[in-house]
Amino acid sequence: ADAIHKAVAHCELPAGVFAHLHGQSHEVGKQLVTHRYTKAVGFTGSYGGGKQLFDWANQRDEPIPVFSEMGSVNPVFLLPEKLSQSAEAIADMYAGSITLGVGQFCTNPGLVFGIKGKDLDTFLARLGRGIEAVAPANMLHEGIAKSFHESRAKALQQDGVNLVGTTTMEATTAQGIPTVATTTAKHFLANPFLHKEIFGPYSLVVQCHDADEMLAAARHCEGQLTSTLMGTAAEIAAHDDVVEAIKNICGRLIVNGVPTGVEVCLSQHHGGPFPATTDARFTAVGADALKRFARPIALQNWPDSLLPDELKNANPLGIWRTVNNELTKEPVV
Amino acid sequence: ADAIHKAVAHCELPAGVFAHLHGQSHEVGKQLVTHRYTKAVGFTGSYGGGKQLFDWANQRDEPIPVFSEMGSVNPVFLLPEKLSQSAEAIADMYAGSITLGVGQFCTNPGLVFGIKGKDLDTFLARLGRGIEAVAPANMLHEGIAKSFHESRAKALQQDGVNLVGTTTMEATTAQGIPTVATTTAKHFLANPFLHKEIFGPYSLVVQCHDADEMLAAARHCEGQLTSTLMGTAAEIAAHDDVVEAIKNICGRLIVNGVPTGVEVCLSQHHGGPFPATTDARFTAVGADALKRFARPIALQNWPDSLLPDELKNANPLGIWRTVNNELTKEPVV
Repeated sequence: ADAIHKAVAHCELPAGVFAHLHGQSHEVGKQLVTHRYTKAVGFTGSYGGGKQLFDWANQRDEPIPVFSEMGSVNPVFLLPEKLSQSAEAIADMYAGSITLGVGQFCTNPGLVFGIKGKDLDTFLARLGRGIEAVAPANMLHEGIAKSFHESRAKALQQDGVNLVGTTTMEATTAQGIPTVATTTAKHFLANPFLHKEIFGPYSLVVQCHDADEMLAAARHCEGQLTSTLMGTAAEIAAHDDVVEAIKNICGRLIVNGVPTGVEVCLSQHHGGPFPATTDARFTAVGADALKRFARPIALQNWPDSLLPDELKNANPLGIWRTVNNELTKEPVV
Repeated sequence: ADAIHKAVAHCELPAGVFAHLHGQSHEVGKQLVTHRYTKAVGFTGSYGGGKQLFDWANQRDEPIPVFSEMGSVNPVFLLPEKLSQSAEAIADMYAGSITLGVGQFCTNPGLVFGIKGKDLDTFLARLGRGIEAVAPANMLHEGIAKSFHESRAKALQQDGVNLVGTTTMEATTAQGIPTVATTTAKHFLANPFLHKEIFGPYSLVVQCHDADEMLAAARHCEGQLTSTLMGTAAEIAAHDDVVEAIKNICGRLIVNGVPTGVEVCLSQHHGGPFPATTDARFTAVGADALKRFARPIALQNWPDSLLPDELKNANPLGIWRTVNNELTKEPVV
């Protein structure tokens, strides 16, 4: 907040354009979202908080849009040929991604699906050893760390869930404990708790019997910010049913990478189907994020002199415009 | 529905892509909107129906977007210089616009604001005579006609509302009765009933004391599909407070025209702030209407051969694309 206040002053924006309010309960948020001058809301945080703001906004006399980005488990699908080529390299990459920022990235890969066999065993063994070597670190605040410890303990107690590896170093109550566990697709499909995000450095590797079971698991995943596919071009082409299922649930689909890097660029889409966000049509990162707080207006038969520069016939800004269905920088004559 | 079924067959679209269901109550709509396979809803009709669908959709376990277009009073603002130049021509134009399609266009101009004086008197007298000469005609169905007759009677009984002109011809109960009434801005500001749409060939001319009272009236209008400004370029420039107030409430702003023509083109925006629609960011008419039923997805690090043609490096479709922040038709090399 201090940094933003400095930036506001530096850019000579109106004082009061930014405010930072504290509060232990949802009451501050409720007042803000239900105030009649509020026209749109952006939010990043928990499902409970984000969904509550969305509900309040829709219950207003004049409903307003709420862009809640509420987290995601960001499933990763390991296809067999790719895994047989580079199980250990993928494991190393994911040991880093799972624990990046103490697992607090909203694009943290919390679920990894693979097909049972010796390549997945190799991947798991290497990933376990990688996680053991990662030091615990402070989470954003103590409340988040407490919640992580509770959820992690609950997850490891679920029927059919087995620990693969956890840090060998001592952790304080304020720290996240790097952890990877595994289960079968059968348990995953039967237990909705295993679909949920555990906010912090925890991931679950789900072992599928075959490609059909992986497809069933993909179809059971809820809406996500990202999904990732590790596969050769040939096997991605051969698994178009899995690809289609994953496309249906996510806002960004990565091939042979990790979801944790979120670049601020025009092609970024940081959003996804509910419950990842409350509005899958908008992004929270990249230039298009501005569109959350804008709406179109058509100006018909306006005097040229009164139009904004972007729309004047002479195109004084020299920008690309669509005129009579054609993109052009030419003036309208 | 028959025409669309023929088009579906002609275009060889999948059978079942279109269905037409009847029902007297909202129950059919409720079943459709709350079904878990339904992902988005478009609606045109009354506020009661559209808002109810919106509420049901937001109460689902997985909320879905609802694009309800719920009607609009489409206010027209007559600035004095323009009115003094062409009061009778404007009156003739509006006599036609108010009664076009028996006043059932969602962009029907239901409210006209002017500043008291002899030019507005000239306008009113001419508009009254114009309306008297328009024949009654059948409305969409008897229920709509019944509702029009009731609302029209109620409107004419409101305190401070006076009849300006109504058709001189006999109307059946199935027909709309062309009608124009007038009131003062004081009555308009005090009586929310006068802000509401009367669906059919009825308009209310609101007489303002001066430009300040016209500004107050503009600021009291609810969200609209369109607003219209009749004015010379000089006086539009001089009334930027009124222009700003009108921009804030509408999706399309017309200068020196009528709102009733809705062209299907790229620059069309047929939408507007609540309660005109439930989502001011989308249009129900024009190419962008498709965006109501689409959502973005980013494909990261995909093998070129598996990308859709629109995204392949070679640009086989030869379309405009944004590459490294520049619009181009060139291939990516």
